[in-house]
Amino acid sequence: MRDAGPLLAQIQPGDLFIVVDGGLRHLSALGLRPQVLIGDLDSVDADAEERAREAGCSVLRYPPHKDETDLELALAYALQEGCTTLCIAGGLGGRLDHTLGNLYLLTQPALEGCQVRLDDGVDEVFVVRQSVEITGKSRDRVSLLPVSEIVTGVRTEGLAYPLRDETLYRERTRGISNVMLAEQAKVWIESGLLWCIHSRLGSPQDSSGGEK
Amino acid sequence: MRDAGPLLAQIQPGDLFIVVDGGLRHLSALGLRPQVLIGDLDSVDADAEERAREAGCSVLRYPPHKDETDLELALAYALQEGCTTLCIAGGLGGRLDHTLGNLYLLTQPALEGCQVRLDDGVDEVFVVRQSVEITGKSRDRVSLLPVSEIVTGVRTEGLAYPLRDETLYRERTRGISNVMLAEQAKVWIESGLLWCIHSRLGSPQDSSGGEK
Repeated sequence: MRDAGPLLAQIQPGDLFIVVDGGLRHLSALGLRPQVLIGDLDSVDADAEERAREAGCSVLRYPPHKDETDLELALAYALQEGCTTLCIAGGLGGRLDHTLGNLYLLTQPALEGCQVRLDDGVDEVFVVRQSVEITGKSRDRVSLLPVSEIVTGVRTEGLAYPLRDETLYRERTRGISNVMLAEQAKVWIESGLLWCIHSRLGSPQDSSGGEK
Repeated sequence: MRDAGPLLAQIQPGDLFIVVDGGLRHLSALGLRPQVLIGDLDSVDADAEERAREAGCSVLRYPPHKDETDLELALAYALQEGCTTLCIAGGLGGRLDHTLGNLYLLTQPALEGCQVRLDDGVDEVFVVRQSVEITGKSRDRVSLLPVSEIVTGVRTEGLAYPLRDETLYRERTRGISNVMLAEQAKVWIESGLLWCIHSRLGSPQDSSGGEK
């Protein structure tokens, strides 16, 4: 987690907090209590686990040598509970294989009807299936990278370098480093899957927005 | 760059050094001289550029608002020069959009006949098109993640959790956190494209090799 602020600002009454393994420590440090703790719990000490239980948290412990990452298990749990808007706090910027695995989890067909993002407070990442609306600040950076080999019919609104019904190719870097013109931007696609990475830079002093 | 050591150990006489923008500083700090400097040069000061020119370095300067990242331009240059074994030093772990864009550059069809990897000295990343051999140490971590939606016929040799003609799915995390059993491992696939991320952990004290 690089900046908890933007995430804390979005918490609403009735939100379900699921923590994955060592995330328990981070959530506790923010004064929040999880309803569910999931994972192999190799990064959770027994005391912390006990305190969570006493506070009414359900603990779902899995063996360490499993086929899924803890986050994959947590997503399955959230879907099973009927969640349709999911914010995965963190999950970016640690181990490269985990970051990549976390990003790809967003492409699950089961998440198709959901609003879901990975968010470390600075970068938020969505998978665009049809369209996505980005809320940020003027000069924030928005990068578009195909998940699929080819993404067709890419259109943007509110970005400094507009795309108009264009095709993006996975092995090219054309969609990197676009810039928000105001507090809202929108991206549409016709076919394929597209990463949308919104980096909250915002401040007018920052001049790295358009750098390739 | 997290550890220059493994990269310096592989330098051979006659290697072509291409630096991208601010990479000039890092290469100079290692006592190495580039033959070519490519990019918009927004991170290179005029003195450093002049010194590089005086030492015989060619400078290919591009406008900052271009469609390609500096690395995409450098790869095109290397291919045009006939390079077939390419090590991209660094390129992982900075801006998330750049890291992802750099990873996807490896999937270029033009690189099909080449041995190419991204390497920050700890993690090295290959795209497996047919097979790949990994050289490391026992207990090093190897994670396999599909680039394509589906990768079929995945077989491994020398890994603690062997795959035997299996299918991997992009939105699942099954291939994450495998472990090398000795100094060599091998991965084959039948169809699709697969990321192979080899993390040089190596030391017997390290116990995070198999963690999901």
